[in-house]
Amino acid sequence: MEIAHNFMGPGATNTMTRINENGNVVGTIIVNCEGFPETTTLDSLTAATYSNHLRTLSLHASNALKEIDVTDELVVLRLVSKKTEAVVAPDSEFHIIVVMRKH
Amino acid sequence: MEIAHNFMGPGATNTMTRINENGNVVGTIIVNCEGFPETTTLDSLTAATYSNHLRTLSLHASNALKEIDVTDELVVLRLVSKKTEAVVAPDSEFHIIVVMRKH
Repeated sequence: MEIAHNFMGPGATNTMTRINENGNVVGTIIVNCEGFPETTTLDSLTAATYSNHLRTLSLHASNALKEIDVTDELVVLRLVSKKTEAVVAPDSEFHIIVVMRKH
Repeated sequence: MEIAHNFMGPGATNTMTRINENGNVVGTIIVNCEGFPETTTLDSLTAATYSNHLRTLSLHASNALKEIDVTDELVVLRLVSKKTEAVVAPDSEFHIIVVMRKH
């Protein structure tokens, strides 16, 4: 959280705190443009696995959308599985991943 | 729709009709296990593009989830872009893709 505060300003930490206050949220991860978790509320192994897979997936999704309509842009990618729900919000510099419990 | 009725039974056509009755739905596509659109309410070119990209994407997502937790299974993949929203519900035999207007 300290890294987020220093490198991304108070906006990032406030957003993370606000998201984590939701009872269904297991954890959040901020992934940098190189695919490494910049800051997270999960343990580092889980964060690394999620950020690796979900960042690749969101890049794939973004490319697929661009092939369908070149002027379109990915806003959110949501994966609902039997056990969890994961949301990726991509951005040019950082991706934010939120892992949630199934409700 | 006739193909859906003959090969997948009345359940498939009923589901497609029900989904298409929603005002936000642009079209639905049923993709077979080989990645080809089996039946659709979109034009064939759009259907082919969507089924090709979104099926690959849902397979990627499914594999990523399995790497995170081997007992987990993908239920729904939702892509929200600036212009549209697409939902993929994978199954062992068929994938159903629903393309929606942004509301």
